[in-house]
Amino acid sequence: MRVPSKELEKRVADFQVNLRKREIDGALLVQRADTLYYTGTAQNVHIYIPVEGRPLVLAYRDFDRAQKESSWEVFPLRGMSKIPNNIQEAGLPLPRILGLELDVLPVNQYERYLKTFPEVRMVDISKEVRRQRSVKTSWEIARLEESARILPLVLEFAKEVLHPGMSEVEFEGLLEGKARSLGHGGHVRMRGFDSEFHVGVIASGARAAVRSCFDGPVTGQGISIAHPNGASMEQIQKGEPIVIDMVTVVNGYQIDQTRILSLGPLSEELTIAYETARQVEERIRRALIPGRVAGEVYEEILNWVQENTPYGDNFMGYGTAKVRFVGHGVGLELDELPTISKGSSEVLESGMVVAIEPKFVFPGVGVVGIEDTVVIESDLGARYLSVTPRELIVL
Amino acid sequence: MRVPSKELEKRVADFQVNLRKREIDGALLVQRADTLYYTGTAQNVHIYIPVEGRPLVLAYRDFDRAQKESSWEVFPLRGMSKIPNNIQEAGLPLPRILGLELDVLPVNQYERYLKTFPEVRMVDISKEVRRQRSVKTSWEIARLEESARILPLVLEFAKEVLHPGMSEVEFEGLLEGKARSLGHGGHVRMRGFDSEFHVGVIASGARAAVRSCFDGPVTGQGISIAHPNGASMEQIQKGEPIVIDMVTVVNGYQIDQTRILSLGPLSEELTIAYETARQVEERIRRALIPGRVAGEVYEEILNWVQENTPYGDNFMGYGTAKVRFVGHGVGLELDELPTISKGSSEVLESGMVVAIEPKFVFPGVGVVGIEDTVVIESDLGARYLSVTPRELIVL
Repeated sequence: MRVPSKELEKRVADFQVNLRKREIDGALLVQRADTLYYTGTAQNVHIYIPVEGRPLVLAYRDFDRAQKESSWEVFPLRGMSKIPNNIQEAGLPLPRILGLELDVLPVNQYERYLKTFPEVRMVDISKEVRRQRSVKTSWEIARLEESARILPLVLEFAKEVLHPGMSEVEFEGLLEGKARSLGHGGHVRMRGFDSEFHVGVIASGARAAVRSCFDGPVTGQGISIAHPNGASMEQIQKGEPIVIDMVTVVNGYQIDQTRILSLGPLSEELTIAYETARQVEERIRRALIPGRVAGEVYEEILNWVQENTPYGDNFMGYGTAKVRFVGHGVGLELDELPTISKGSSEVLESGMVVAIEPKFVFPGVGVVGIEDTVVIESDLGARYLSVTPRELIVL
Repeated sequence: MRVPSKELEKRVADFQVNLRKREIDGALLVQRADTLYYTGTAQNVHIYIPVEGRPLVLAYRDFDRAQKESSWEVFPLRGMSKIPNNIQEAGLPLPRILGLELDVLPVNQYERYLKTFPEVRMVDISKEVRRQRSVKTSWEIARLEESARILPLVLEFAKEVLHPGMSEVEFEGLLEGKARSLGHGGHVRMRGFDSEFHVGVIASGARAAVRSCFDGPVTGQGISIAHPNGASMEQIQKGEPIVIDMVTVVNGYQIDQTRILSLGPLSEELTIAYETARQVEERIRRALIPGRVAGEVYEEILNWVQENTPYGDNFMGYGTAKVRFVGHGVGLELDELPTISKGSSEVLESGMVVAIEPKFVFPGVGVVGIEDTVVIESDLGARYLSVTPRELIVL
């Protein structure tokens, strides 16, 4: 599926408004999620967006595919040092102030751009890109809705194949394979430096409550010291809460969802905690309305959990491993804006898409909780994009 | 499996020799593959290696696991600005010249280090790290041998499950799931900026010969414009060469391997081309001996193919999509040194591990070729680490 030319034109025009506000002459974007967003191709391209006029798309590899996939005219990138020439040949003035993605660009590559544009002042343009991308267009919401169709089918498949004694990682492999066969793109893009992510966290019982480096409330034990997040080689047993926290991505757009399964009933405490998580999720969803400040929503939810449930200590992690958010933006990347997090001053807007994930961690026992991807739309609260039934799944 | 303390001590001591040679006072390493290599844990840590004395390991998340997993003493990382204090509290002098991984470090993070160490001159230490890591210790070779045991079992499984009409991506999902259940770590680390990799390339017939952005001779069509490498949703048919180019990773160590399968016999031309690829692989393997220059091996192989086979135009890609290498280092990352590539002046050493991958691309038809991971050891040529039979697999 190609990104329609009108969609690309609007994205670039809206970005140019932000360049104008900051008095930046142009931006050179090179990171995959950003170039995909503004060009419509995930080939290896640079896009130069001047404050006025048509953007210049330069493809390194593969040129032919980039040309077919993007509705912009595409030119070959023949080397970094030729980019100023390319800009001038396109009839555009050379920038005096140039925006770059300084949140992701490695220093050595940045220094090559400094040499290429010796007279130019470089500024970080990543906040403008990330803020624009946090507000999804209706075309993007439709893509997210398509991506959301995979996970209910994966959960149905999970019920068929799971049996006591299956290893977490075997279960994960089967679920990921099913998602792939239904069109899941596999690679889940993240922006943060050195972020590592495979398919999510498929983990059972106490192992789901093991802490690790991934910046989420539930990380899992992992398969080895070298791969310390997600599924382990250990076996899934009866009566344990099994976390299925998975991301699917279709046409680049990600849905992040968590459900809890168990073979046989869970303890009464875990069952009640699960229902509490559902209540918290509903509270978060209803609080996500245009105009609210993300950090205030976070405090409100945290306070509610502490005052109205016995699980304050278990909410969003345990002890020093607690995370300080209850939701994060998703779209072309898994770590988009806004974050519904401590101290965040981000103002919620219609079109923002957030994965909300109230989870309770019981060390030595397991994890229960829920996660859905929602879109902020109206004063009535956000709308669920993920369509998997929200009940605890007891097999 | 923990990395033995003697192994970590030797790695740090050898690195300190390189610091001394370059007159660098210390290096602050933060990228996952590098920190895993010197600390033995893949948790989120910084390691400061002074030119003399014990290294200082600072863990951000998860501290307890980092402490258990690494044989170094681990201290909590309480904020970037406190690192100079941490260094002094460990009884180490503050560096005047500090090495950083400038090939991967994002500009904004680098600028925070500049503020943290205002009087310090920053230099790029990534070449020293990558060169050291390119030469594997015997402990590492043993880990690679373990990783290599998965792929023959995956190929046996592939023969059982494949049938005409199966989609490439369904086939891929099954193979990856099998590899996972056997201990494959899932996430394949790459160093290059914005490198994206899932499991490899599972692609059949003409689609395997489609070009894309991934820097390899065979990329595949991919599942969508947004995920343009690897398997597609299209069906595998009889008589086509099916590329199974997969990476497995166990305890962090990667094996890269390619085999060709077909449902029913291939054409005579493709069968001969496959046998030619095997001959080329043997030539590469025998040329990989300590003391040789990588770029000279590359030219020798390229010339041999052009002079002795009819497939010069098809070797390592077609037309403008040809890649200029026949092998690449593998280990904790898929894009390690050395590269057996055009113009490379790298001198081969005993202990270097390389994936060699002679492949012939026939546009509109398909791809045949082979790939194995080998270790350079002696004048007799490199030794195969991958243990899957090398015959064309006709079902």
